[in-house]
Amino acid sequence: MKHYTEQNLNKLPRRYRAHLINSATGYKSANLIGTVSENGISNLAIFNSVIHIGSDPALLGFILRPLTVKRDTYQNIKETGFFTVNQIHKNIVERAHQTSASYEKEDSEFSKTGLTESYQDDFIAPYVEQSFIKIGCHYVNEYLIKENGCILIIGAIDHIYVSENNIATSGNIQLDEMNTVSTVGLDTYALPTILARFSYAKPDREIETLL
Amino acid sequence: MKHYTEQNLNKLPRRYRAHLINSATGYKSANLIGTVSENGISNLAIFNSVIHIGSDPALLGFILRPLTVKRDTYQNIKETGFFTVNQIHKNIVERAHQTSASYEKEDSEFSKTGLTESYQDDFIAPYVEQSFIKIGCHYVNEYLIKENGCILIIGAIDHIYVSENNIATSGNIQLDEMNTVSTVGLDTYALPTILARFSYAKPDREIETLL
Repeated sequence: MKHYTEQNLNKLPRRYRAHLINSATGYKSANLIGTVSENGISNLAIFNSVIHIGSDPALLGFILRPLTVKRDTYQNIKETGFFTVNQIHKNIVERAHQTSASYEKEDSEFSKTGLTESYQDDFIAPYVEQSFIKIGCHYVNEYLIKENGCILIIGAIDHIYVSENNIATSGNIQLDEMNTVSTVGLDTYALPTILARFSYAKPDREIETLL
Repeated sequence: MKHYTEQNLNKLPRRYRAHLINSATGYKSANLIGTVSENGISNLAIFNSVIHIGSDPALLGFILRPLTVKRDTYQNIKETGFFTVNQIHKNIVERAHQTSASYEKEDSEFSKTGLTESYQDDFIAPYVEQSFIKIGCHYVNEYLIKENGCILIIGAIDHIYVSENNIATSGNIQLDEMNTVSTVGLDTYALPTILARFSYAKPDREIETLL
């Protein structure tokens, strides 16, 4: 096996190192975060760092890169207090990736990439019409990760929209039926298929395969 | 589409709600975190919350549930300062899930589940012999998420071990070649296949498919 130490990781070319370290912890989630500025300019940005924080109360989080360059997502959330999290599926993966281009502040990634902004139930932040799972959140808190200047944003879930046919009796959303993608590093997208669903694990009892 | 508001999410049965909210943000990473207590008892625990924090310096993070019950992983990290992050692949997914059972503190999940502990390069925390990607970290910091008592642990990467044949020229690890799994919610595992690798996105230029 190839062995990288902290010292020889530091000597790798910057982008190679970023790919290696990003991919070493496995597949990540792929979501589009939708916001709007107080001037009404919508923004859409792809994130692979959305994580589950808790279900009671329903909270999620995501990591923002350091604020050393303009971060429209952050500024819009601070201005309005709201954002949406939208599922990326196979048919929109190329348009979703294109949202990572550095557009001018007055340009909306929605119009630039051909994804459709949608407003529902008087919620101020835009959803992605094409997504099969849409989550509306309000900003709750942020934690500055002082080790590198990243920020963990915490949002509380106000709304979840999901196709009713794709919720299993367990409550799990059938991500595979919706062709939901996952990501590898910064530039690669994958399509998972379900291997197995297992019973709750207990000591000295074999786990059962439920699915 | 089915529409859940904050109010009707709160009325769902506890486990159904946990599945729904966990799965709504998409596929997550699947990793085994290895630690050892100061008394030499090893511990292995499955996490779906390992995230990338940065590549310069190389940092990762993961979310620990509130410390209202015993958390061997947390206590061991605080005692020794070190932990490992180990890839879960198709052939060990059932044993990996079994680590989530509530074993007695004197029992190691390694011996209970049949995963093999391995010690390398004088690193104190145990790796999983069967994993094709193994990461050794030292504890750097923790952030208490006061909204629900979860803790974000930040670790610095000291070592990465990965099969040399599975590193692409870009630096991306070929997770699919190693049958790396991803997770849905708390109990479901998926096997991704690569859809596409895209070029760096720029305004007014079509993205290219590199893979």
